Amino acid sequence: MSQQHYIHSVMQQSMETFSIYKKESFAGRLKLAEKIAEILQLNADELIDIAASETNISKERLKQELERSSLQFLQYASAYKNGSWLIPRIDIGKKDLRKTWIPLGPVVVYGASNFPFAYSTVGGDVASALAAGCTVVVKAHAAHLQTSILSAKLIHQAVIECNLPSNIFQLIEIENHADGKFLIQHPYTAAVGFTGSFTGGKQLFDWANEREKPIPVFSEMGSLNPIFMLPDALQNEYLDWAKKISFSIIQSAGQFCTKPGLIFGIDSIGWNSFKEAFAIQLEAMSPTKLLHDGILKSFREKVNHAEKLTATHTLRKGRDEDNKVTATLHEVTATYFMETEILKEEVFGPYCLLITCKDYDEFLAASQHLNGGLTATIIATYEELKNNDLLIDRLQSVCGRIIHNDVPTGVVVEPAMLHGGPFPATTDSRFTAVGSDAVARFVRPITYQNWKSIALPDELKNENVLELWRMVNGQLTKNNL
Amino acid sequence: MSQQHYIHSVMQQSMETFSIYKKESFAGRLKLAEKIAEILQLNADELIDIAASETNISKERLKQELERSSLQFLQYASAYKNGSWLIPRIDIGKKDLRKTWIPLGPVVVYGASNFPFAYSTVGGDVASALAAGCTVVVKAHAAHLQTSILSAKLIHQAVIECNLPSNIFQLIEIENHADGKFLIQHPYTAAVGFTGSFTGGKQLFDWANEREKPIPVFSEMGSLNPIFMLPDALQNEYLDWAKKISFSIIQSAGQFCTKPGLIFGIDSIGWNSFKEAFAIQLEAMSPTKLLHDGILKSFREKVNHAEKLTATHTLRKGRDEDNKVTATLHEVTATYFMETEILKEEVFGPYCLLITCKDYDEFLAASQHLNGGLTATIIATYEELKNNDLLIDRLQSVCGRIIHNDVPTGVVVEPAMLHGGPFPATTDSRFTAVGSDAVARFVRPITYQNWKSIALPDELKNENVLELWRMVNGQLTKNNL
Repeated sequence: MSQQHYIHSVMQQSMETFSIYKKESFAGRLKLAEKIAEILQLNADELIDIAASETNISKERLKQELERSSLQFLQYASAYKNGSWLIPRIDIGKKDLRKTWIPLGPVVVYGASNFPFAYSTVGGDVASALAAGCTVVVKAHAAHLQTSILSAKLIHQAVIECNLPSNIFQLIEIENHADGKFLIQHPYTAAVGFTGSFTGGKQLFDWANEREKPIPVFSEMGSLNPIFMLPDALQNEYLDWAKKISFSIIQSAGQFCTKPGLIFGIDSIGWNSFKEAFAIQLEAMSPTKLLHDGILKSFREKVNHAEKLTATHTLRKGRDEDNKVTATLHEVTATYFMETEILKEEVFGPYCLLITCKDYDEFLAASQHLNGGLTATIIATYEELKNNDLLIDRLQSVCGRIIHNDVPTGVVVEPAMLHGGPFPATTDSRFTAVGSDAVARFVRPITYQNWKSIALPDELKNENVLELWRMVNGQLTKNNL
Repeated sequence: MSQQHYIHSVMQQSMETFSIYKKESFAGRLKLAEKIAEILQLNADELIDIAASETNISKERLKQELERSSLQFLQYASAYKNGSWLIPRIDIGKKDLRKTWIPLGPVVVYGASNFPFAYSTVGGDVASALAAGCTVVVKAHAAHLQTSILSAKLIHQAVIECNLPSNIFQLIEIENHADGKFLIQHPYTAAVGFTGSFTGGKQLFDWANEREKPIPVFSEMGSLNPIFMLPDALQNEYLDWAKKISFSIIQSAGQFCTKPGLIFGIDSIGWNSFKEAFAIQLEAMSPTKLLHDGILKSFREKVNHAEKLTATHTLRKGRDEDNKVTATLHEVTATYFMETEILKEEVFGPYCLLITCKDYDEFLAASQHLNGGLTATIIATYEELKNNDLLIDRLQSVCGRIIHNDVPTGVVVEPAMLHGGPFPATTDSRFTAVGSDAVARFVRPITYQNWKSIALPDELKNENVLELWRMVNGQLTKNNL
């Protein structure tokens, strides 16, 4: 069987299984999620061992990541209860109209190399698609193939224990461009979740839109996560911020999508003190292997390229020996930053660029030269915050999460989390990849008109059997009709 | 000034005004909507006179449509209160995270010819974009240009009376393809709302996705609105259904996006009685001018083409004199329908196609040959409904609104309404064009991390000053923090 025949049969099975799984009750989907979470934890040691051997990620972090993965399954599958993505609307007036949300169909997931669990085979896209009632086909990531295979085996074990059809979830290997295109353009593929590079995510988006029937793609494609430091906040606390931000860069060797990659400051004593302290703090990073050779190669190229720019001042030159690297810190002027496009591209790994602005006007001007990102951070006293409406306004317009006096890394899984943002951070700023609202990417509304209560899905019946919040004649209530 | 320079200046003004209007409070946006609704009603006579002279639509229907337009402004602008599109999320645990929704930016709206008010210059896309906090640029529809110009004048009057900058709303004329592309691909265009033909809506979608920064497009592009009639329901009530459905086709000369265009039945006494009665009921349509010459031309071509297909049986031949038409009713076998793609395309106007299935198996088979649409209808006794899970399932998968024993026309403006559906009915089945959920097309979430309450937008402050429903630590509540 050729690879494309194989992909076709996988999608066919996914579609057939979807016709069964889409009818699974919310409680049934939650039971599956609980079973997956339980089995992941029961097999944590083996999963962590394999992932550690494939990825150069510390076992301690992998343990946290696996716990987060389990949490995501639980949170997303239970999110129908609190109204995260499902608040049925019922209007009984001239017409009897009742609206609920149903799954889109088979979802294709491309996971990330930097989170072998939480953004991969047992990651948030899978958890949200299954919670939505969709079947899932995961494209295995070559950088942690064995982890993916074991993860898939464990999901299948959970599916079987829940007496559900095993093809709810399938893992597939895609080796080349043409097969990827075939998968995304397969008529049964109903939506796509992706975490990775801009090139990869944009390619999937384009393929999806070229289809005869376009489908939604949520690609999360990287971010610069700029930090803007105001003088008064720096004055006394420069050392604190140097410590906190350097940790945010050093952890996991800067291989987080929310790693701060750009820091803007205004030439002053405070800023100079910060720069010096920050460079010293970055010394704390011990030489580390990056996730895989591709990332190492790209990191070296980008850092070397930045270093060779005539206007770049190296504040700290990272070591690079035996395929292990440490943090590199460069500095440029705001004028140079604004005119140099290459400096606005993400350098994935332990790298940070400081942008020194000669005055406040330049600092403000620089804030207009940012691409869409996941986060933006302001380090400021409350007085400074109050006097920086324009800066706040500009940062809001280019990010999904705006942070005051904290660091962007540490993406907690909560309904209020937003892991998304304007293009090119993602392909649709109206959705999130983290938090229970992530389910909304994979469902669509459907309205029942003039149906008898008994023939309706549970969430729309007169009696509120699921005890959900529902919007009845425009009012949120848990009452029966 | 060339046309493209002109478009550029319009978009520049829209963007500049957006930087002001996006900060307008929810109450301020509601006040604007109330003022628009009031001014539309004060000028109803003049608006209706002009629209009637341009569109061949009856004054009685135009009056209803204008009332609906006013209602849409009021409903959508007040929808922030009930949680239709805004339920802030606040999580205070490891981090202080607070998520709200903000406007996308300038929205470009292409209105429809068949609703000179409710889907046009004072239509639902404009009402939802303004409610979202977006500025709007409406492409005037050539078929009712004077109505658009007066509508725009009245909106401006309302904007001025509310002391808001007049460029919140702008009307623009686009004369050719290249200018349309320029408008959609202008860097300041942030989203698009469209109602009209497949060709037009898909073109805007493609232009938007070819942009360096793609933007969301909600195109509503037509629908066949199939009706499936089960034998027992027909048996006694065939005359009733013949009356109701024929009225659904005759009103406004079939020029509604939810007009039933296909009716499926199983060869039987009931079905034959229905066909006969239905053909007679369609006689009730008096010769009517269609909306404009383009629609008349397309209607004639499509009806003639269908008539010439050898397998088409004409149950009622419409009159076509002095540019006035009456209803045409054709019949084909299910086998022929399934193999003939042209019959699956919308005929906009007073036309309906009956599909006679030789048995229940063919009836079910035919249900697999539908494109995505806005609605699907089942006429069935409750017993029949219970025994038709597979049919229901298939219809659900290809529509946005599924109707039992009612007709699809009559799109009431309520939160539970869904005016949307799978491609090619729309370009994104996850959204609606009617009902207050329509606002969600033009907003995106943003999360504030670690901000002092006082520096946050009102809806996220500790004190719930707007008295909104908020999800606090995963629970819906109106309490203060």
